[in-house]
Amino acid sequence: MFETAEIGKKLSKAEFDAALPGLRTDLLKAQVRLEKAHFPVIVLINGADSAGKGDTLNRLYEWLDARYLTTFAYAEPNEEERQRPEYWRYWMALPRAGRIALFYGNWYTHPIVDRVYRRIGDGELALALSKINSFERTLTDSGALLIKLWFHVSKKEQRRRMERLQGSKSTRWRVSAVDWKQHEQYERFINVCDGVLRETSNGESPWHVIESTDDHYRDMSAARVIQSALQARLEQPAPPHLPKPEAPISDPHTILDTLDLSKSIDKKDYEERIPLLQGRLNKLARRLSKKKRSAIFVFEGSDAAGKGGAIRRIAGALDARQYTIIPIAAPSEEERDHHYLWRFWRHLPRRGRITIYDRSWYGRVLVERVEGFSAEVDWRRSYKEINDFEQELTGDGIILVKFWLHISSEEQLKRFQARETEPWKQHKIGPEDYRNREKTPQYEAAVETMIEQCSTRHAPFTLVEANDKRHARVKVLETICERLEAELR
Amino acid sequence: MFETAEIGKKLSKAEFDAALPGLRTDLLKAQVRLEKAHFPVIVLINGADSAGKGDTLNRLYEWLDARYLTTFAYAEPNEEERQRPEYWRYWMALPRAGRIALFYGNWYTHPIVDRVYRRIGDGELALALSKINSFERTLTDSGALLIKLWFHVSKKEQRRRMERLQGSKSTRWRVSAVDWKQHEQYERFINVCDGVLRETSNGESPWHVIESTDDHYRDMSAARVIQSALQARLEQPAPPHLPKPEAPISDPHTILDTLDLSKSIDKKDYEERIPLLQGRLNKLARRLSKKKRSAIFVFEGSDAAGKGGAIRRIAGALDARQYTIIPIAAPSEEERDHHYLWRFWRHLPRRGRITIYDRSWYGRVLVERVEGFSAEVDWRRSYKEINDFEQELTGDGIILVKFWLHISSEEQLKRFQARETEPWKQHKIGPEDYRNREKTPQYEAAVETMIEQCSTRHAPFTLVEANDKRHARVKVLETICERLEAELR
Repeated sequence: MFETAEIGKKLSKAEFDAALPGLRTDLLKAQVRLEKAHFPVIVLINGADSAGKGDTLNRLYEWLDARYLTTFAYAEPNEEERQRPEYWRYWMALPRAGRIALFYGNWYTHPIVDRVYRRIGDGELALALSKINSFERTLTDSGALLIKLWFHVSKKEQRRRMERLQGSKSTRWRVSAVDWKQHEQYERFINVCDGVLRETSNGESPWHVIESTDDHYRDMSAARVIQSALQARLEQPAPPHLPKPEAPISDPHTILDTLDLSKSIDKKDYEERIPLLQGRLNKLARRLSKKKRSAIFVFEGSDAAGKGGAIRRIAGALDARQYTIIPIAAPSEEERDHHYLWRFWRHLPRRGRITIYDRSWYGRVLVERVEGFSAEVDWRRSYKEINDFEQELTGDGIILVKFWLHISSEEQLKRFQARETEPWKQHKIGPEDYRNREKTPQYEAAVETMIEQCSTRHAPFTLVEANDKRHARVKVLETICERLEAELR
Repeated sequence: MFETAEIGKKLSKAEFDAALPGLRTDLLKAQVRLEKAHFPVIVLINGADSAGKGDTLNRLYEWLDARYLTTFAYAEPNEEERQRPEYWRYWMALPRAGRIALFYGNWYTHPIVDRVYRRIGDGELALALSKINSFERTLTDSGALLIKLWFHVSKKEQRRRMERLQGSKSTRWRVSAVDWKQHEQYERFINVCDGVLRETSNGESPWHVIESTDDHYRDMSAARVIQSALQARLEQPAPPHLPKPEAPISDPHTILDTLDLSKSIDKKDYEERIPLLQGRLNKLARRLSKKKRSAIFVFEGSDAAGKGGAIRRIAGALDARQYTIIPIAAPSEEERDHHYLWRFWRHLPRRGRITIYDRSWYGRVLVERVEGFSAEVDWRRSYKEINDFEQELTGDGIILVKFWLHISSEEQLKRFQARETEPWKQHKIGPEDYRNREKTPQYEAAVETMIEQCSTRHAPFTLVEANDKRHARVKVLETICERLEAELR
């Protein structure tokens, strides 16, 4: 994969100077058009040591409009990053639509270095690459333009560059003993990278291998690849949005029908059990903190099913410094400019802490599906993206507990009417709520698919019979306590 | 993922009988339309033992037009299959456009069973699933409709069914000791399958989990899933074919320019070396056979570069029973109705044998790219598909040697003109050949990308300076001998 980058490609100073004004104009023009376009651009800068990646990065900064450009350089994870799943720092850095982000040192760095130094084997590398492929596909599926640049120099050229730097007092500091150690591993590095590039180069985001012996050629080529990929993408007609009517529901019988909504708990029993459960939860939460684990509780459910009330009973058991409640409503403008999962990644708890989502990423396959807010191809893809996301969470040791609170249609109507008569609840009800009720069968079919696709062993859904609020709250608290106990044993 | 299939979904005999005529009409109508459509349909039948998968299969055979339907049931690989890479048997079974194939026992069977019985670990399972995802994506990317059905019964229901079968003399033979052993592993099986389904359910081809306790419900649901997926696909408008002009070639300098085409060997030297090299190759080929390895030699090159002559020198060294030469020209109608890699899978050598491809799968990213025979999105995707394919080959122990034979434009013109004057060569030349010469820069850019993306450590390309035929033939024979020696040590 590197033969084409060892053939002496170069540009003279005169050629470079002659081509530069045209290139810079094209780049800026494309960038201006990008601002109004609805996709972000992610550029990866990878390759051999001493290939001059940093110099190219500086050039790009000079040639592009820096106001719409961000650069990220990742080394070892910092304190904040170590508290969260591996990819959290990359998610946080994803540019919004209309912007360009350059990633120098990125999700490829660790797998490559770890394999070169034999800290991981072939199997672990393959798993890391499969994770990279899923992640990059999530990005490109959602419309991001991902440009992957690989800067290559031969072993001889690498040595020449290091010796040149070492030969001058002013640049000697740039070459360390570690660099020479890396240089000795050159063949091994190239062998590993050959496999990495092969596995991760694909139609949507191929690797561009750039010969980096000549600085002019390297910088100009990198900029040209970015410019032409961007231009091609800007000229691509938007795919027609095909609103497809939801197929008629062939089987109206869903798992929700199996719930015994008559389940209830009497007041006395409830008042005895709640404080006991809260005490148990409080103790468990302290154990969670001590063990440096974190937890996420997800609440979904029909309108007026009592999510808020259940959440308050949990919060009442916890130290206010330990938890955050994230209510999910319509996304902000900035959130809409990112991948739909971005806003959930943002709020992931640090180790030892708890995040409670009042509605969640499941909105994608519930309200967005039923109301047609997202295209069919998009929500259909989301089950897998959600499963990958949740696996990332549980794989990192986060305890994930998910609830669906369910009430009957009659109970819902009763609660809506009650809200209208109580002044402090009137803001919670409007004509839209009544309209949504007409789509109950569609919502129930969506819940059925959600359970089918996303209730997994490591992150099961708990269905809660919620016609009786007391029963619902007790079941929620009990479920959380049991899960925490099992996980924190 | 199985909760929604343990809720007692059923259909009474009366409901079933009432719905059947409509279903069968819809199925046959869709199948008639499919015959004229340009995609194949692949249906996977998987799930728990005793769920009645075989019965559903029989039903589908009854309800669909069997003339355009094939069923494959895979058990242990047979003699022919063991001679080739694992996926060969599945590739061979892929239906052509317009047809439906039902796979009962398929690429999921081994990974699941092996993990349940602890013959493989989590890492190996993850790798197997990642391979499945690549394979299925290759299918759906090329337009195939892939429908995945999972038939589920609870442990209790499985036991009930087995006991019922055992209770009657006429069906007792259907339950073996192995079945009871499997039944004891039920929880473990479900645990493994939960992960398998989660990893492989995605937007293009989600798993449909079907509750299989009630036979009527099971059969009707399976048929409805197939019918509605097929109908939705038939109604989907074809994506607009956007012929995009190839971007201008910004850097006409390619790896081909680095070849020293003046390299030559004098006649005497040549006549001494060829027989020696052929003898060496003959011995190596016998060693290959003895070691039960196989080999594939791929020849690509400019028109009139001398591929045929080089191939004849190889063939001259081999026992005619050991090798096959596959000349690749325009695909047949049947081949066009399959994935473009299908026709290359067909000719894979058995162990101990050699296949020589005179032109190959690289046509996809050479002539098809330059002449616009395939859409940009398709050929861009192909580099990765080719790399996956070649990894499947080399991973199975096949020795893969790939050549690009290169001649200068002047030498090519000379050879074209010589062909015109020699009567026995006139059929090899036409106006089209001269026209193609105008696209030389585009072809060279395509070769550059091909080398960049597909010349990998385990399957490198050898560039051959072919202005001098003698030099070219010697280099080809030497390269093959060296590769075989290294691999057969």
